[in-house]
Amino acid sequence: MLMILKMGVTQQQIDKLVDFIEKHKLKAHVSIGETKSIVGIIGDESKISKEHLESFDFVEKVMPVQKPYRRASREIHPENTVIDVKGVKIGGNEITMIAGPCSIESEEQAFEIATALKKMGVKVYRGSAYKPRTSPYAFQGLGLKALKILRKIGDELGLVVETELMDIRNIEVVAKHVDMIRIGARNTQNFDLLKEVGKVDKPIILKNGVSTTMEEWLFAAEYILNEGNNNVILCERGIRTYEPATRNTLNLSVIPILKELTHLPVIVDPCHAAGKRGPIPALSKASVAVGADGLLIEVHNNPQVALSDAAQQLTPKDFEILYNDLKRVAKSVDRTLV
Amino acid sequence: MLMILKMGVTQQQIDKLVDFIEKHKLKAHVSIGETKSIVGIIGDESKISKEHLESFDFVEKVMPVQKPYRRASREIHPENTVIDVKGVKIGGNEITMIAGPCSIESEEQAFEIATALKKMGVKVYRGSAYKPRTSPYAFQGLGLKALKILRKIGDELGLVVETELMDIRNIEVVAKHVDMIRIGARNTQNFDLLKEVGKVDKPIILKNGVSTTMEEWLFAAEYILNEGNNNVILCERGIRTYEPATRNTLNLSVIPILKELTHLPVIVDPCHAAGKRGPIPALSKASVAVGADGLLIEVHNNPQVALSDAAQQLTPKDFEILYNDLKRVAKSVDRTLV
Amino acid sequence: MLMILKMGVTQQQIDKLVDFIEKHKLKAHVSIGETKSIVGIIGDESKISKEHLESFDFVEKVMPVQKPYRRASREIHPENTVIDVKGVKIGGNEITMIAGPCSIESEEQAFEIATALKKMGVKVYRGSAYKPRTSPYAFQGLGLKALKILRKIGDELGLVVETELMDIRNIEVVAKHVDMIRIGARNTQNFDLLKEVGKVDKPIILKNGVSTTMEEWLFAAEYILNEGNNNVILCERGIRTYEPATRNTLNLSVIPILKELTHLPVIVDPCHAAGKRGPIPALSKASVAVGADGLLIEVHNNPQVALSDAAQQLTPKDFEILYNDLKRVAKSVDRTLV
Amino acid sequence: MLMILKMGVTQQQIDKLVDFIEKHKLKAHVSIGETKSIVGIIGDESKISKEHLESFDFVEKVMPVQKPYRRASREIHPENTVIDVKGVKIGGNEITMIAGPCSIESEEQAFEIATALKKMGVKVYRGSAYKPRTSPYAFQGLGLKALKILRKIGDELGLVVETELMDIRNIEVVAKHVDMIRIGARNTQNFDLLKEVGKVDKPIILKNGVSTTMEEWLFAAEYILNEGNNNVILCERGIRTYEPATRNTLNLSVIPILKELTHLPVIVDPCHAAGKRGPIPALSKASVAVGADGLLIEVHNNPQVALSDAAQQLTPKDFEILYNDLKRVAKSVDRTLV
Repeated sequence: MLMILKMGVTQQQIDKLVDFIEKHKLKAHVSIGETKSIVGIIGDESKISKEHLESFDFVEKVMPVQKPYRRASREIHPENTVIDVKGVKIGGNEITMIAGPCSIESEEQAFEIATALKKMGVKVYRGSAYKPRTSPYAFQGLGLKALKILRKIGDELGLVVETELMDIRNIEVVAKHVDMIRIGARNTQNFDLLKEVGKVDKPIILKNGVSTTMEEWLFAAEYILNEGNNNVILCERGIRTYEPATRNTLNLSVIPILKELTHLPVIVDPCHAAGKRGPIPALSKASVAVGADGLLIEVHNNPQVALSDAAQQLTPKDFEILYNDLKRVAKSVDRTLV
Repeated sequence: MLMILKMGVTQQQIDKLVDFIEKHKLKAHVSIGETKSIVGIIGDESKISKEHLESFDFVEKVMPVQKPYRRASREIHPENTVIDVKGVKIGGNEITMIAGPCSIESEEQAFEIATALKKMGVKVYRGSAYKPRTSPYAFQGLGLKALKILRKIGDELGLVVETELMDIRNIEVVAKHVDMIRIGARNTQNFDLLKEVGKVDKPIILKNGVSTTMEEWLFAAEYILNEGNNNVILCERGIRTYEPATRNTLNLSVIPILKELTHLPVIVDPCHAAGKRGPIPALSKASVAVGADGLLIEVHNNPQVALSDAAQQLTPKDFEILYNDLKRVAKSVDRTLV
Repeated sequence: MLMILKMGVTQQQIDKLVDFIEKHKLKAHVSIGETKSIVGIIGDESKISKEHLESFDFVEKVMPVQKPYRRASREIHPENTVIDVKGVKIGGNEITMIAGPCSIESEEQAFEIATALKKMGVKVYRGSAYKPRTSPYAFQGLGLKALKILRKIGDELGLVVETELMDIRNIEVVAKHVDMIRIGARNTQNFDLLKEVGKVDKPIILKNGVSTTMEEWLFAAEYILNEGNNNVILCERGIRTYEPATRNTLNLSVIPILKELTHLPVIVDPCHAAGKRGPIPALSKASVAVGADGLLIEVHNNPQVALSDAAQQLTPKDFEILYNDLKRVAKSVDRTLV
Repeated sequence: MLMILKMGVTQQQIDKLVDFIEKHKLKAHVSIGETKSIVGIIGDESKISKEHLESFDFVEKVMPVQKPYRRASREIHPENTVIDVKGVKIGGNEITMIAGPCSIESEEQAFEIATALKKMGVKVYRGSAYKPRTSPYAFQGLGLKALKILRKIGDELGLVVETELMDIRNIEVVAKHVDMIRIGARNTQNFDLLKEVGKVDKPIILKNGVSTTMEEWLFAAEYILNEGNNNVILCERGIRTYEPATRNTLNLSVIPILKELTHLPVIVDPCHAAGKRGPIPALSKASVAVGADGLLIEVHNNPQVALSDAAQQLTPKDFEILYNDLKRVAKSVDRTLV
C-alpha cells in the first residue's frame, strides 16, 4: 500500500500511522515531500485493510500495490486454465458453444431442442430449473423435475448439461444432476453460496453481477477457488448503465482485460444483455472476434410460448445460421468453434 | 398493457397477437392509426408477461398500465404502514435512530457502545454478526457468538436489536436472537432468502441493491409481503454510479418518490454510501430533511481498530453531536427524532 | 402519445386534458378503464411536448407513439445512406479505416505517419488541430498550423483528411482545410455548433457523448440533418459507466441497434473508450464483426512522446498487424476493409 | 506521481522510465520491492501527464500526489470565496434563493413572476433566453428580446438577474444584459466557452455535466479561474444513473465533499434532476440541510402553458410555502435563507 497524506500532517500523526502499521508486523517507509508526504508499507499488504488506512483522517488516498486477489491472478498462475468437462475443453484454442432453452419447461420441449442442437454439433446444453425472477408472480422454474430431465438429456444424448443454482439448500441435488453449475448475476456476491460451490467437484460458470467491477468479480471467483475448486469459468452477461435501448450493456472490453488479469476462461452471454433477439447475432460475432472462450446462447423451439425470457431466445433455425456464421468468424481469429 | 406496433404491420400479424392475448383469457382492443397501430389489453394484465408481448417482432414498445407490484403499492394500501417493534414505532411521525457498530467484535466492545447510545436516548441497536465481504480474506464476523451478545444487549439494556441475515441456513438462529432482520445490498434480489424472511414474524429492513431500480426494489419487498410478513422497512444505502469521490452515491430522491409509490417506511443508511466519515453528518441532516422515517448510523468506540468499515464509523462523541443536530432538523420539518 | 392517468382521476380533470390537447389542433381519444383510464392523441404528436402532458398532476405516464426524430429515422428513409468523400464510400459494403495521430504535433511527425499509413492502403487520415482537454494546463493543439499540415497531407498524398471542430468560431477555417469534420464527445449536445455544421457542405463524424442515450444521439444528428447536411456518420466512442478498468465502456450493442433505427453509417473509435493500448486490437476486431461501417484508430510514430493520448496510440508497426487481421475478420462477415 | 511497475520489469525498462522523467527536469525515486517496484516523481508533477506515464507498457498504475487543479483547490486557497453580486453575498452564512421561470416567454409573464417573487423577498431572478433542447423541433428561447426583459426587470425591480449562455458568439450581449451568467450541463466541458467567460467580469454559475466527475467539474471551474475570473459558483443539477424514476439523480454528497476540496460556493438545482414537481420540495429541504449555499428553483405563473420544462416548475403559491419551509430548515442548521 502507498498512502498520500494530506497537507499539513503533523509528525505525531505520521508516528501514529507508522505505529499502527508496525502493530500488524509490517514495515513503514515514510517519505516527507515538500507539499505532501507519502507512506509505503513493506511486506504482505493483505495483513492490513485499505479501509483501515483510510480511516485515519489525515490520509488522503490509499493505493494498493499488490493484486488483492491471488488464486485468480495471472501474476501467480501465468498459464491459461483449461477446464475439461467430460471431454469438452473450455479455455483452450477451441471456443465452446453452450446452447439451450432459458428454462426447462417439459421433457418434450427440452429433448426436442437438445436433439436439434446435438445434430448441429453443439456439445454443451443449458437449461434452468430454478428461475430468479424480479416479480414473485412470474414462473419460478420446474425445480427437481427439470434437473432430472437435464440428467436424462446428458445421459441419453451424450451432452454436457448445466443449470443455475440459486438456493444454497439445493446445492447437493443440483451437483448430483448436472455437469456444470451456473451462478447468475444476482448471486455473484452471494458469498455463502460461493463458498459452498467452492467445495463441489464440478466446474462453475460465474456470471458478473449487473454492477460488479472486474475486481469484485475476480474476488467472487477467488471465494470459489479459495475453497479448492479451481474450475471457474467467468461469463460476461452485461452491466447496468443509463442506456435504455438494451436491457443491459454488454461489456466486451472485459474479455481482453480479464485475459490479461486472470488465467480463467471467459465466455459471453449476449442474450441477457440484449434482452431481445435483434442484436444477438451481431453481439455473438463480436464476442468471438474479441477473444471469448465460449458463448451461452438461448434457443427455444417456440419462443413466443416460452415461460421465461421469451423475447431473447432464438429458434433452432436462426441459431443454426448463426452457429455457422460464428465458425467463420472464429476461423478469422485463428480459433475453432465447437 | 399498451402495445405500439411497428410501421408496416400486417393484419395477419395483428390477428396473431390478438389470438395470443385471447388465449390468456384477456380482451384486446385494436386501434389502427395512420402511421402506427396500437393494441391494448383489457383485464388483469398480470396474466401475461411484458417480455412475451415484446417477443413478437412487429411489436415496437410495450407499456404496462397497472402497477406490477401490488401489496407494496400505495394504490391498494393508501395508509402509511407503521411498524411497532417492542414499542418503537417506525413509519409514523417519529424518526427512528438505529445506531451501533458495523460488526459485533466482542461482548465488551458491543456493550460499551450500546451503553453509551442508550444513555443518549437511542432505542434501536445495530450490529452485524455475519459480514458480506468482497474479499474472502477479510473478517467474516463472529456469527452465533455475536447473535448471543446482541440478545444479551437487547435484554439487559432494553434496546431493540437488529442484525444482517445473509445465509438462508441461518434464518432460524438469527430470528431467534434479534428483533429485526436486515437484508443487505448484495441480497436484495436473493429471492429464495426473501421468500423465507417473508415467513418470519419479525420486521425486515430491506436495503436496495447497489444497482436495483426502485421498481425492482419494490418487487423485492413484494416477495416478502407476498409470504405474509407485512413489516418491511425500505433502507436506501446508495447506488453505484460513475462518480469515484464517494463509495456509492446516496440517492435521496428515493425518499419522496417511494413515499408516493408505497405505504412502507423508508429509512436511510448514509454511512455505506459515503464510505468515509466526512460527509456523514451532512448527509444525515439531508436524510431527515428529505423525509426519511429513520437513520442507520455506524458508531464505534475506536474506529481505527474496527474489524470492518473502519473509515465510516463515528465515535460515540461525534455521534452525540450529530444526534442533537438532527433533532433540530427534524423539528424544522415538524417531526421528532428518537 | 398515449397517457395513462392516475387512479381516481375525475371527469373534470380529463376534460381539462382533452381541452388542452384540442387547443393544439389535435384530437383526443379517451378510454375509461376499470382501474386506470387512458388518453391517446390522434394527429402529429410533435405539436405537443411530452413534458407538458407530464405536467398535469393526474397523468401517471406518457408514451410517445411516433419516433421523435425524423430525418435520421429509417422509418422515413429506409435505404442506407452511403457517403462519398472524394471517392471513399462510407456506409456501404466496404468498411472504412480512418487512422492517424491523436494530435498533429509537427509537419514532420504528421507526414511520417501519413506516409506509412498511405503505403499500407489507408485512405482516410485523422489528426486533431484543437484538443478538448480536461485540464487547462494540458497541450491544447497547434490550431491553424495543424489545419494547414492536414490540407498539405491531403493534397500531396491523396488522402481524405479529417479533424475535430470544437469552437464555433473556427468553423470556416476548419471547413476550408479538411474533407470531413469531427464533433467530439463533449460537443454532442452543443446545439449551436450542430446547427452550424448542418450548414456546411462536408461530411460530419458525430461522436456520442459519454452519457448520451441513443435517442439523444439521434436527436443531435437530427440537428445537423435538419439544416440540410445529410452526410452524418455516427461514431461510437464509449460511454461512462461505474467500471474503472477502462476509461470508458465501449458499447458495441449500439451498432446493430442503430443500424435498425437509422440509415446513417455507424463507425467505432475503440481507442478513447479503452484509454490504453492493450485492448484496442481485440475491440477493433469486435467492432468489425459486430457490423461497424468503419474504425477510427490512433497511430503515432512514437507514442511515448505524443503530446496527447499517449497511452492509447498504436505504433505504425502494431497498426499494420492489426489492419491485416481486421481484413480477415471483415471477410468472415462478408465485407471488405479498406 | 507514484507509479507501480508490473511484475517482471527489467532494469533497462526502469532506466528508460527514469530517463523520461529526468528529461522533464524532474527527479525519479526508484524503490525495488520484493514483488513490485515503485517509482516516484519528485518536483512539480504537472510538468508530466499521467497518460504519458501510463503509456509505458510495464507501468501498472499511476497515482497523482498533487491535486491537479490549483486555483479551485482549498489547499491553495483555504478561505471560503464569498461572491458579492450587487449586494447579494453568495458563499457566506446566508443561503441564496435564485428563482424564476425556466424560459422568459414574454415581458408580461416575466414581470408577473418577478413581481411576485420580489414581494416574497427573493433577491435573485433566473430566466433563460436561449434554451438547449434535445430536440431541434422544441422551443429554442426568445434570445435578445429575453435579455432585454431581464435587464428591465433587474433595473425596475432591483433584482439581480441571471441567464444561461450557450453560444460563445452571444457572450458580449449576454454579459451586457445580466448580472450573472449560467453555464448549463451540456457545456460544462465546452472549454472554449469556459475560457471566454473566464475573461468576463460577471460571476459564473457553473453546473456539473450529467456525467462529469467532481474532479472534471473542478477542472472546468479551473478553466474559468485561470483566465482571471474568480467568481465561480458551482451548481449541482443531478447526474445520469441507471434509475428511471427521476430524470437525473440529484447527488447531494457533492456538497460536503466539494466544501472540503474547494473554496468556491456550491448551490443546488433540484428541479432539473427531478424532472417533475413532486420531489422538489423535499429535495430543496435536503439541499439546505446538507449545506448548500443556495438554491435554483423554477417558478412559473402557469406551468401548464410554459414553453419549456412544464413539468418541473412550481407555481408562485407553491413556491411561497416552500420558501417559508426552507427558512425553518436553514435556521435548524444555523444559517439564514434570503
